[in-house]
Amino acid sequence: MFELHATLAADSLAVMEDADIMIRLIDDVRFPWALVIPKVPGARDLHDLDTVAFEKAMRVSRRLGALMQQAFKADKINTAAIGNMVAQLHIHVVARRRDDAAWPAPVWGSGPMVRLAPAEAERRIGEIARGLRLD
Amino acid sequence: MFELHATLAADSLAVMEDADIMIRLIDDVRFPWALVIPKVPGARDLHDLDTVAFEKAMRVSRRLGALMQQAFKADKINTAAIGNMVAQLHIHVVARRRDDAAWPAPVWGSGPMVRLAPAEAERRIGEIARGLRLD
Repeated sequence: MFELHATLAADSLAVMEDADIMIRLIDDVRFPWALVIPKVPGARDLHDLDTVAFEKAMRVSRRLGALMQQAFKADKINTAAIGNMVAQLHIHVVARRRDDAAWPAPVWGSGPMVRLAPAEAERRIGEIARGLRLD
Repeated sequence: MFELHATLAADSLAVMEDADIMIRLIDDVRFPWALVIPKVPGARDLHDLDTVAFEKAMRVSRRLGALMQQAFKADKINTAAIGNMVAQLHIHVVARRRDDAAWPAPVWGSGPMVRLAPAEAERRIGEIARGLRLD
């Protein structure tokens, strides 16, 4: 039985999901930043997924990156499975801009989150949910 | 015509390659840290690769992560395409340990590189080259 880690739940908002995968938006106005979370109990690293789950997770992450680059006019997409703080497997997809709060440093360790106002959260969730297929 | 970016070339050592992909070792004793570089001119983000090149890059990156976890007794594998400093597409695969120099922070921005002594470079390259398939 898959359960989303409490820290990921607290730091992000639901965007969409299917039986295999969950898409969430990090609740931080500084960066358009999504998570792809395979619903596989106990998975920590990409090689903990079976081939089908791995290929789907990466296919959706890549599609999400292409979509976010357009939607948020990004200069660079950062795609990363790190998990040093929260080991539950999650793939970050972050739309980076040369004028954002951390550039060119990574977003991880870039200081405290600045929570999204509801209208901006809704706008970002809409951009992703309207454009993304999970197959 | 693909040419490896000068910064990536200067910061890393050749491990192995085929017609599609290059594997290099970051020249830093603090972390067992490899790069997977698709030999695709102009590629910056994962979605710049065609499907075949993307699937191969991710398949090799995942296999490399599994191998490095065993070979370097890692607590966590970090797999990331970032490229804010050097845009040429390269996928980091880093074997992290709870007692390493940056844990739990990411390796990017963790201070200056500490170059490998030749014997340790040879050992790490051997661990990867002996175990990794590029198909």
